[in-house]
Amino acid sequence: MAAGMTPFTPADPAYESRVRESFAKQAVMATFGASLARVAPGEIEIALRNSPALAQQHGFLHAGVLATILDSACGYAAFTLMPADAAVLSVEFKINLLAPAAGERFVARSHVVRAGRNLSVCQADAFALVPDGEKHVATMVGTMMCVRDRDGMRG
Amino acid sequence: MAAGMTPFTPADPAYESRVRESFAKQAVMATFGASLARVAPGEIEIALRNSPALAQQHGFLHAGVLATILDSACGYAAFTLMPADAAVLSVEFKINLLAPAAGERFVARSHVVRAGRNLSVCQADAFALVPDGEKHVATMVGTMMCVRDRDGMRG
Amino acid sequence: MAAGMTPFTPADPAYESRVRESFAKQAVMATFGASLARVAPGEIEIALRNSPALAQQHGFLHAGVLATILDSACGYAAFTLMPADAAVLSVEFKINLLAPAAGERFVARSHVVRAGRNLSVCQADAFALVPDGEKHVATMVGTMMCVRDRDGMRG
Amino acid sequence: MAAGMTPFTPADPAYESRVRESFAKQAVMATFGASLARVAPGEIEIALRNSPALAQQHGFLHAGVLATILDSACGYAAFTLMPADAAVLSVEFKINLLAPAAGERFVARSHVVRAGRNLSVCQADAFALVPDGEKHVATMVGTMMCVRDRDGMRG
Repeated sequence: MAAGMTPFTPADPAYESRVRESFAKQAVMATFGASLARVAPGEIEIALRNSPALAQQHGFLHAGVLATILDSACGYAAFTLMPADAAVLSVEFKINLLAPAAGERFVARSHVVRAGRNLSVCQADAFALVPDGEKHVATMVGTMMCVRDRDGMRG
Repeated sequence: MAAGMTPFTPADPAYESRVRESFAKQAVMATFGASLARVAPGEIEIALRNSPALAQQHGFLHAGVLATILDSACGYAAFTLMPADAAVLSVEFKINLLAPAAGERFVARSHVVRAGRNLSVCQADAFALVPDGEKHVATMVGTMMCVRDRDGMRG
Repeated sequence: MAAGMTPFTPADPAYESRVRESFAKQAVMATFGASLARVAPGEIEIALRNSPALAQQHGFLHAGVLATILDSACGYAAFTLMPADAAVLSVEFKINLLAPAAGERFVARSHVVRAGRNLSVCQADAFALVPDGEKHVATMVGTMMCVRDRDGMRG
Repeated sequence: MAAGMTPFTPADPAYESRVRESFAKQAVMATFGASLARVAPGEIEIALRNSPALAQQHGFLHAGVLATILDSACGYAAFTLMPADAAVLSVEFKINLLAPAAGERFVARSHVVRAGRNLSVCQADAFALVPDGEKHVATMVGTMMCVRDRDGMRG
């Protein structure tokens, strides 16, 4: 749990399996080589193995790929706190790029800033794993929506 | 050119080939099945063929994939107006998701809102091609940076 | 109506008086010297007379003051399309500053990009009135929420 | 210093007086009843006494006023690390509103996430002071620009 945060109590005790099942359905995560490294109440960690197939024109990881794993990290952080029959959708997110995304492995860590009944605000950071630790390459804040009773949409 | 816009005059007459060469180096565009549909001064259009490999958990195109093509559209719109020896990098962008990204084909259209010496602000919209026209699924505003003289970085 | 926009039909025919009454209650608008210049379905224009009392450290209008009138313009654009018993609150907004806000008069023009039952996305631009026309100084995209049945909150 | 942050070393040892002089020139801060509560390398705290003159239509503090003090907090956090002859301008910021801004006093706390030569990314949070502590009402991430040699602009 990030410093200063209020601990969250999930409404659904089975939140972790619910997140893992939904993540497994996000085909783009497998396409990217991203995996779910950690699930906790209001917090998610996604790991990404870099690949030349994900590069922008200078060979760095494309900012949009970083945005994809940060967005999923935000969405699932919010989802850990949602009721069992809910689905999560992104309303909006902003990403600030802090340094070129060079590296073989990246990690995205998110936490819920505010959990609301319908809307949750989440914050996430992406780090490149470098020889002497982690390099902060991007930061995101996004709004995630809890969807209920919509055509049986779940996850 | 979008209504009400000031026409832009590219500093480099060879802007189109410069954009096309750089786009061809963005490996992630080929990975996604995205292609450069239009290049004009201060404007870009990128087409995307949807694929199950790019889906989020409900089968829609992942918001991060939309963000990726919108970000590239913004970057290259700014790049059309940059000098021949410049490189473009994203500083930040925000995307607002307007509707679930369902469809077989999408298009991202961008234009430069303000072209500065170092920073440019670009706006882009994504549309799903649907039987009766286009459905607006996302909108982005981002800041793009012109980089010069950095380790021979180009494009 | 901005080029390419779908015309909107207000749910409440008395939308204009509803907007004007709410705007009149925004005490900060009077504090700033801002006035409601135009109300149309999905569109708002707010005029601002600059004042030294609103300056940042170099004498320009503070970016936050621009953000305030752009945010109100977004909120009321969304509000024109809401039912008679609704209230509007801002969920989030981003502003990109395009040029220093120098000038005696400014105008903020907004329009609804997507009107949803609960959330609406609006876009707004601020212009300084200069001798030869208007100078584009800022652009905003924000998410506005329709609130119903909350403690009799209206407007 | 926020948890996990790298300590910053100001380029200009007189950073605090430089910030205080610039803040004193921001007339809008006096108009709002805002004061500079804390200046440290890469960190700022601004206090705001609420006033009916700053209200939106339901009597809460207008989101744009919160944005104003958060933006100044971000700008001055970046400014603490800039050289003595620099000026700071906002490039962009996004604010997410977490709860209605009700209260008599508010505080905005910012810190630098990344300090670059030309661009710095800052994060800031606004809290309402309530009887049992602080209520988190808004969060911002913004990009601040270091301006040098522009018409003698300072601060």
